[in-house]
Amino acid sequence: RRLRYERDPAAIYAESFATVRAEARLDHLPEDLRDVAVRLAHACGMADVPNRLAWSDDVVASARKALAAGAPVLCDCEMVAAGVIRSLLPAGVEVLCTLNDPRTPELAQRIGNTRSAAAVELWRERVEGAVVAIGNAPTALFHLLELLDAGWPRPAAILGFPVGFVGAAESKAELAADPRGAPFLTLRGRRGGSAMASAAVNAIAKGLS
Amino acid sequence: RRLRYERDPAAIYAESFATVRAEARLDHLPEDLRDVAVRLAHACGMADVPNRLAWSDDVVASARKALAAGAPVLCDCEMVAAGVIRSLLPAGVEVLCTLNDPRTPELAQRIGNTRSAAAVELWRERVEGAVVAIGNAPTALFHLLELLDAGWPRPAAILGFPVGFVGAAESKAELAADPRGAPFLTLRGRRGGSAMASAAVNAIAKGLS
Repeated sequence: RRLRYERDPAAIYAESFATVRAEARLDHLPEDLRDVAVRLAHACGMADVPNRLAWSDDVVASARKALAAGAPVLCDCEMVAAGVIRSLLPAGVEVLCTLNDPRTPELAQRIGNTRSAAAVELWRERVEGAVVAIGNAPTALFHLLELLDAGWPRPAAILGFPVGFVGAAESKAELAADPRGAPFLTLRGRRGGSAMASAAVNAIAKGLS
Repeated sequence: RRLRYERDPAAIYAESFATVRAEARLDHLPEDLRDVAVRLAHACGMADVPNRLAWSDDVVASARKALAAGAPVLCDCEMVAAGVIRSLLPAGVEVLCTLNDPRTPELAQRIGNTRSAAAVELWRERVEGAVVAIGNAPTALFHLLELLDAGWPRPAAILGFPVGFVGAAESKAELAADPRGAPFLTLRGRRGGSAMASAAVNAIAKGLS
């Protein structure tokens, strides 16, 4: 028995994005953020996601410029890294995740924080001008903000999508209230996740490769 | 400046799960599905997820038994595979994703379907008694159901969490209406995603390793 459903990838994409555009409110967003917002809604199946975004107006331009110049993408977890579509990135752009670096567990103990926060410390040599994509851990975003307060150089963009019931809404509110001079995009509230973080990277990278 | 937030992983988990349990409705679920439902809500930051689950009563027991016996986890995309916590799985359990198998693109052309659906065809030798985790593509779930209709042996469980605006709700409704004799768990509607699919595997595997 052959079931009835759309099998053509191009038609699926077109119908998906058309549905999001029909249902979502986008007119409050800067022009260059609208495609990104559509991708974020598409990634999670929720057309109201654009309503809860917070951003700096330069975030898409800054992240695109950084990727075009070969800056790395720094991810807080392997799922975000797995979701970044390598063929969209300019040649030579690295996608890095230090969560499973052998130094991370001991570093977490030393700084009295989660492994996700410790993994951020290992971005030190790469963070300047990088594109940061956080799709899991509120502590990674909180700790990145602390390190910026401590004098770290700014990334080109913070794409902040930690998810969950403890610290996610709070860390994103802190980012939106005081991004420490870094261009940023975030989703207020508990929702977020690796699919959104990687969708943001993919949408921003579109056309660069 | 030190920001105020919870830094202890155990405390974060405990508070997260306590919040989900306080906010979510769970009493309509079979006993052994409640922890799984909590994990699903936790994975996406949405406590209403348990309200929209559909399942067969044997799904958790069947999937646990399969994993305990060394059955593989078959994933529709790399993000699901990346989200499965290997240390929770019994030794020797493989986590497989055939989406980037070199045969997949040509196979997609041949069967006139997406790469995600073609990747499912490559599960043929491993699907019997396996744990299937679909966290992205509606076409993967639809095509799996077609292959079961065509006589494929049953997996031990179908954890069906495709996401999005085209086919996701429909493929999950088809699974729930006629699971072809396979134990299943799914979330009705557009929501889903790789974080939920891997959270379901992780919750089911808990205590087995």
